[in-house]
Amino acid sequence: MKRLSIPAPLRRYLPILDWAHSYNRDTLSNDLVAAVIVMIMLIPQSLAYALLAGLPPEMGLYASILPLMAYALFGSSRALAVGPVAVVSLMTAAVVGNMALQGSAEYAAAAIVLAFMSGLILLVMGLFRLGFLANFLSHPVISGFMTAAIVLIGTSQIKHLFGITSHGHELITLASSLAQNIGDINLFTLLIGSGAIGFLIWARKGMKTALMAVGIGAKLAGILAKTGPVIVVAVTTLITWGFGLTDHGVAVVGKLPSGLPPFTMPSFEVELWSNLFVAALLISVIGFVESVSVAQTLAARKRQRIYPDQELIGLGAANIASAISGGYPVTGGLSRSVVNYDSGAQTPAAGAMTAIGILFAAMFLTPLLFFLPNATLAAIIVVAVLSLLDLSMLRKTWVYSKPDFIAVVVTILVTLGWGVKIGVTTGVLLSIALHLYKTSRPHVAEVGRVPGTEHFRNILRHGVETTPTILTVRIDESLYFANARYLEDYILNRVVGDDALRHVVLMCSAVNAIGMSALESFEAIMHRLESLGIKLHMSEVKGPVMDRLKRSDFMQALTGQVFLSQYQAIETLQAD
Amino acid sequence: MKRLSIPAPLRRYLPILDWAHSYNRDTLSNDLVAAVIVMIMLIPQSLAYALLAGLPPEMGLYASILPLMAYALFGSSRALAVGPVAVVSLMTAAVVGNMALQGSAEYAAAAIVLAFMSGLILLVMGLFRLGFLANFLSHPVISGFMTAAIVLIGTSQIKHLFGITSHGHELITLASSLAQNIGDINLFTLLIGSGAIGFLIWARKGMKTALMAVGIGAKLAGILAKTGPVIVVAVTTLITWGFGLTDHGVAVVGKLPSGLPPFTMPSFEVELWSNLFVAALLISVIGFVESVSVAQTLAARKRQRIYPDQELIGLGAANIASAISGGYPVTGGLSRSVVNYDSGAQTPAAGAMTAIGILFAAMFLTPLLFFLPNATLAAIIVVAVLSLLDLSMLRKTWVYSKPDFIAVVVTILVTLGWGVKIGVTTGVLLSIALHLYKTSRPHVAEVGRVPGTEHFRNILRHGVETTPTILTVRIDESLYFANARYLEDYILNRVVGDDALRHVVLMCSAVNAIGMSALESFEAIMHRLESLGIKLHMSEVKGPVMDRLKRSDFMQALTGQVFLSQYQAIETLQAD
Repeated sequence: MKRLSIPAPLRRYLPILDWAHSYNRDTLSNDLVAAVIVMIMLIPQSLAYALLAGLPPEMGLYASILPLMAYALFGSSRALAVGPVAVVSLMTAAVVGNMALQGSAEYAAAAIVLAFMSGLILLVMGLFRLGFLANFLSHPVISGFMTAAIVLIGTSQIKHLFGITSHGHELITLASSLAQNIGDINLFTLLIGSGAIGFLIWARKGMKTALMAVGIGAKLAGILAKTGPVIVVAVTTLITWGFGLTDHGVAVVGKLPSGLPPFTMPSFEVELWSNLFVAALLISVIGFVESVSVAQTLAARKRQRIYPDQELIGLGAANIASAISGGYPVTGGLSRSVVNYDSGAQTPAAGAMTAIGILFAAMFLTPLLFFLPNATLAAIIVVAVLSLLDLSMLRKTWVYSKPDFIAVVVTILVTLGWGVKIGVTTGVLLSIALHLYKTSRPHVAEVGRVPGTEHFRNILRHGVETTPTILTVRIDESLYFANARYLEDYILNRVVGDDALRHVVLMCSAVNAIGMSALESFEAIMHRLESLGIKLHMSEVKGPVMDRLKRSDFMQALTGQVFLSQYQAIETLQAD
Repeated sequence: MKRLSIPAPLRRYLPILDWAHSYNRDTLSNDLVAAVIVMIMLIPQSLAYALLAGLPPEMGLYASILPLMAYALFGSSRALAVGPVAVVSLMTAAVVGNMALQGSAEYAAAAIVLAFMSGLILLVMGLFRLGFLANFLSHPVISGFMTAAIVLIGTSQIKHLFGITSHGHELITLASSLAQNIGDINLFTLLIGSGAIGFLIWARKGMKTALMAVGIGAKLAGILAKTGPVIVVAVTTLITWGFGLTDHGVAVVGKLPSGLPPFTMPSFEVELWSNLFVAALLISVIGFVESVSVAQTLAARKRQRIYPDQELIGLGAANIASAISGGYPVTGGLSRSVVNYDSGAQTPAAGAMTAIGILFAAMFLTPLLFFLPNATLAAIIVVAVLSLLDLSMLRKTWVYSKPDFIAVVVTILVTLGWGVKIGVTTGVLLSIALHLYKTSRPHVAEVGRVPGTEHFRNILRHGVETTPTILTVRIDESLYFANARYLEDYILNRVVGDDALRHVVLMCSAVNAIGMSALESFEAIMHRLESLGIKLHMSEVKGPVMDRLKRSDFMQALTGQVFLSQYQAIETLQAD
């Protein structure tokens, strides 16, 4: 057993050791096919997302080389395809765009620092197992944020599709600057852009069927349908070159540097770092959440495991690799990971092979991209993000939970109106506040006995028996500081004026925890009841809660008793 | 029935209507006795607390006149005695001291604005029923804050007791400035201060017994023992005057204005208001929490009710009254409320009578206070706050709950090191963070059947029966965004590699709520299990949780069934 000779800690941090020893010709050929398909998909995507981020197109290619190799070494998913993605590119543009002029050297430098900081944050979270922090991005907040981000991304690309200029990263600024410049519209650009959008939509919806209709096998047709972006890049580039459309105002990618990704040293300016910190944290967490969700979905299909803390390390390494090779923040992409999986990728080696392919592209193919119109890249972005648009969360939360609905709507509106950073932050704080508010008013019910049984139910909902000397209150929530005094008020208000009362029983069957503040409230309730000549009892206290209560002084001071069951409590106290 | 003719909303906001109609000679004489005793106690206290707040002594008197009358109209407690208190005075000093030079007109003006804002905040909280916000000040945080505040108050009075100067509102600044000036110590001041402290401690501990030993009745002895501060004020004032100690460097109160409280218009400067807002909020909430707790304790003894939202209105009115009559922030005081209650106060009219007494003092007695040494007032403060010192929370939380212990210790240290404002804020945020952290890792147990019964218990703790095709997981926490993915990871990690598994049952007996994020996690779990050929079931879902689930798409999509009891689930699935 060769595997056992590798020390466990090393295997934990280097998942490659888990699969490298069993790598063979079969795995290789599978990985190779997947790598080629993903590469064909990734080249236009990486150029397009760099445009979205406001960066030179070659930075998109650079972000698709070394990061993929780093993830292959440290990542725990066998199918995740890492690289530039739409939402992270938008966030990069929004954050860096507020600090430096697009196209300037400072702009690119800030994007590189963002990738480096994001990598460090992810690494630290992974090493200290802080992945649970990502849980505070609730599904409604993520969904609201993604919806708004897609709208912002779409709107930001209109300038490229129309050949006009616009600025800003919030909906109102963007829309009003577009409206001002709408007269400058370039007809050739518009034709290329709308043609590309039309073709790409068809490639997604109808190309596979059409290819199968002309006799191509289903599998090959499926793979060919993924080449839509490459076809549209080739065709529009040829048209623009052939008809000399650059002379008619069609903006193109232009001259790109050829060669290996440059080794870059991120800036270590304190002011820059402190300005970028919150953004880097949000980019890290959002990228991580999206990426882990994709990785887990794909892994579950093959009964493989994803280790979220190891994913943090994998993505952290990928971002640091991106920063030192002239790239910008990366994470796992949904569509390309699905393609990677569907094309038969067996191990992370497929990612490394994709990286080698893109390295060749960066070294030799960039001259071919001179006449690639920006409108084509914008079309690729728009079609890619529109396919991610999912408004179902609005309907779901409206039906299921109004507070969650509020969280979605507020996140969408704030993101649209004030940008992605304030949008996410507001969403997270609002969902925490709504959660605390909900649990601060626990459901408390006065219960009575269902006649002839040992069951106890809410006196307001069921016809039940009660005894005038006994008040039983069931608490349907764990007790902590935010709801402790609510219970105190509830009980004191209930007992005042009820002169027959001699016993109050707290039925704790649904209480999973009693915090220190709640314990203090119990003592306050007990002392106040005592001064009214009423005893306080408890029933159906859970094991772990009881273990903890026994460590406090409360149990000695308790004026009444603790009953295993509510039935036993009533039987004993009625006889009293 | 005269009472019924008063409209309910009016009675809600004017508790005076509840008791005024039944006011008679008996109530009057009881209230009068209590009022005189509280007045005797309050005069030295109000001077001392004004000194603690860094304000001219007459502002303490002003804060003890109109506010008491306002509370008598709007407050819901029959025994609460409102006025300047130690902790609020310390907070006033800390906040205002950072903005203006002590003794300046701006300093007093800022304190008046603080009272006005605090009054508005309390009123708004009362009218919108936001009293629950106070619940976020957990018992451990309050206790930690009070402990640190007492240490700070004690340290801040050393300068008066030693006759030296010091500055700052944090322990280190205070202590180091004291250490620098320790050489300037004034022997006469020190003698007066330490003598006063000694006498006051004896008055609390031994005076009642001593008076009873010389034949005075227990009740009268108890009342006389409360006059300790007045005796010490009279004696030290006479000594200072008689021996001309002001010529020997003993600092005295000096000339106070005589007359009615001045009508003051608070400043409405925007900058001042925005600077004071957080402090005003904290003072309001802390004052409210302390005051309500005292009021409820006293009300419970007579089976009377306290309405927290009405208390907010009562305290709000009192603070606004304080602001417009030259006072500073006030709230209900513990010791004087207990004295008021013990002396037989029947209605809030006692407070109004106390106010009239203090009004006379402000008009006619101030010349007598010229030679009152500051050291005497400092001694009154020190003895009063030391009696409030209670370190038991440190021990209790250490035994009962380590996170709460951390909250207490951090609140103490931050309050001592960085002042009261940052201390409370840190404490509140830390307890919320600790609570979220705790609930983000819910207790989840794999359960099996106790042989021969219908009970299901943790497989790690009990000898139970399980079936290889069925995994039952009991979740001991309500599910929301912070713990939804934890459950997802737990289940997916558990099922990977277990090829025999066909059914997963989520036992929800302890789940009081399932938020939208948790529902999304359930769907993710279900889809991933489905791709492994495993069905997802639920058992023992609570009524309100089920009602809500039925509104979602999840129930239609559920691959398995919902069972009323876990026993039924096992019986059905084993037969499958």
